[in-house]
Amino acid sequence: MTSSQPHTSRTVHPLDRDGLRERVNAALAAFMDRQAEVLAEVGEGMAPVTAALRDFLLDGGKRLRPGFCYWGWRGAGGVDEGAAGAAAVRAATSLELLQASALIHDDLMDRSDTRRGKPAVHKRFEGLHAASDWRGSGEGFGSAAALLLGDLCLTWSDEMFSGSGVAPSALAAAKPLFDVMRTEVMAGQYLDVLEQAMGGGSVERSRRVIRFKSAKYTIERPLHVGAALAGAGDDLLAAYSAYGLPLGEAFQLRDDVLGVFGDPAETGKPAGDDLREGKRTVLLALAAERSSGAQARLLDELVGDPALDDAGVKDLRDVIQGTGALAEVEAMIDALTGRALAALDAAPVAEDARAVLRGLVGAATVRTV
Amino acid sequence: MTSSQPHTSRTVHPLDRDGLRERVNAALAAFMDRQAEVLAEVGEGMAPVTAALRDFLLDGGKRLRPGFCYWGWRGAGGVDEGAAGAAAVRAATSLELLQASALIHDDLMDRSDTRRGKPAVHKRFEGLHAASDWRGSGEGFGSAAALLLGDLCLTWSDEMFSGSGVAPSALAAAKPLFDVMRTEVMAGQYLDVLEQAMGGGSVERSRRVIRFKSAKYTIERPLHVGAALAGAGDDLLAAYSAYGLPLGEAFQLRDDVLGVFGDPAETGKPAGDDLREGKRTVLLALAAERSSGAQARLLDELVGDPALDDAGVKDLRDVIQGTGALAEVEAMIDALTGRALAALDAAPVAEDARAVLRGLVGAATVRTV
Repeated sequence: MTSSQPHTSRTVHPLDRDGLRERVNAALAAFMDRQAEVLAEVGEGMAPVTAALRDFLLDGGKRLRPGFCYWGWRGAGGVDEGAAGAAAVRAATSLELLQASALIHDDLMDRSDTRRGKPAVHKRFEGLHAASDWRGSGEGFGSAAALLLGDLCLTWSDEMFSGSGVAPSALAAAKPLFDVMRTEVMAGQYLDVLEQAMGGGSVERSRRVIRFKSAKYTIERPLHVGAALAGAGDDLLAAYSAYGLPLGEAFQLRDDVLGVFGDPAETGKPAGDDLREGKRTVLLALAAERSSGAQARLLDELVGDPALDDAGVKDLRDVIQGTGALAEVEAMIDALTGRALAALDAAPVAEDARAVLRGLVGAATVRTV
Repeated sequence: MTSSQPHTSRTVHPLDRDGLRERVNAALAAFMDRQAEVLAEVGEGMAPVTAALRDFLLDGGKRLRPGFCYWGWRGAGGVDEGAAGAAAVRAATSLELLQASALIHDDLMDRSDTRRGKPAVHKRFEGLHAASDWRGSGEGFGSAAALLLGDLCLTWSDEMFSGSGVAPSALAAAKPLFDVMRTEVMAGQYLDVLEQAMGGGSVERSRRVIRFKSAKYTIERPLHVGAALAGAGDDLLAAYSAYGLPLGEAFQLRDDVLGVFGDPAETGKPAGDDLREGKRTVLLALAAERSSGAQARLLDELVGDPALDDAGVKDLRDVIQGTGALAEVEAMIDALTGRALAALDAAPVAEDARAVLRGLVGAATVRTV
């Protein structure tokens, strides 16, 4: 499936194969039940924290990272049976807690007010502050709460991974990859923030941000962690990199296209939010490189304008299409997707996993959330 | 040593026994060297992050939590020899990374501009933004950087703990206590923020915040983690609680007193910063309970006033002394310290550890940082 096909929902999502998504959701719910007990011990005041985290963790999401981790494990020979299978699913599910932390902190940094069509965590607690008629700054309260809830998810991710029940030797093999994944995603986030501050992002610098913030974090490292949990060697890790890095880049480029051209009903974000925010993407870097005169002035003026209206969004879309930047990004997505598929064909993985990983290429690059 | 003695520095600090503090510093430096390599891989832009974290982690601090963890381990029979001893020191040192994360995020939430007499991390990066003449909000850049640097320290804490080299069985016994410690400190932080928002803090509610945010986190849980690393049973854990919880409360009460009456040269914070910030402490809750008329109005007006000047600080100090709140807190510190010492005398711990833990009572309750 290439990116030029329409973004319709597919009848059977590869992440639903073998009931994985439901098992991930069940593992998250069980984990959250245990943490709710710990939080309740601390005091009544924790109830809104528990409720907010439960809602955030269980309200959906594609569960991409657990999916890649689980199928990385299966592809490396992991056998999904009994307690060992359940432990592997729990280990994979822990990546969703890391992602929850990243999203909560990301929304706080970006001052993004909505997430999946609902108030972001800092807005939810700002709302609690207002409804409770508390003292001081509601924004400050919301920010502090989001900071702490993100911290909780971050520590819980490791707690769930280390306590997943996988064999100690498997854990010892996978933990260093889990660790480097976390450092890379935070460093990538910093590069992203730095890129926005430095401005005038080049295509090359934007692709570097994508590599660390998205490609390694969303796809390559989850596959590596899964592979290591199954005791895989360097050959398979290298094959997963050859598949995962181009796919991850394609995934982020698709996300950037949806951030500008996506349907709010599907993305869960207001149309043109990335433009309003001035997000430094390869798409915009290309449009800037290829524009001049009136088009260049329009980009300069409107990108990053918090008050950007629908007409402005339309103007920017026209520039991005008119300069050929959109077509070039779509071509990049196709090329990267092709590389990922070729690497997958050559990879020494179990056949059932190969089929799912092939399906995930489509799911990741035409994703609608 | 009781709290009524002058806060002079002691010639031999108990945490320096057996060269512990230097070993903790060396373990942090070695860990930071390895992470510097990972960050350098991500890109040149990471250099200020590496530098800021190195400075923050290595610039001192009493290393209280590693100290309690290490001596909790020794007290439970841990033998500090060879590789096993070095591994235990590394495991204990990991608590300092957790503390670094808490401080970086705390300063961000509180908008505290200095830490140990130097710019807080968010201010340091705000300064970098200004000096580099970058785009957008310098405050936003500083906040994002502090958020991410705190996240890095948080994940590194677990990475250092899990990768410390302690035996797998010891790690398996201690990790659940390490986990609950992290959840408790974050929940305690939230309660603290909530308390400030709700206002009118009662003495009881303030003591609950202290229990979770400080007593368990700074003393009880580090002791538990150390004990579990040495394979201790429930009896010793209970004894450590009987010693650690009152001591931890005394420790925080001392901190609150220093926050109002402390010498800036010793605390590293401007005089009266806690008053300016409106920090809800037991000291202030008691002063509020015991005041009426002009004293009550003064508290109401001046506590939490960001523009509070030296004269205002002096007025508030007079109220806190005049109401007898200061004397009551000093009496509480004495009583709690006495309970901690009595529990220590009865605890089934190794004698050399008992001596150090006795010394730490003084160090914790007259601490000057």
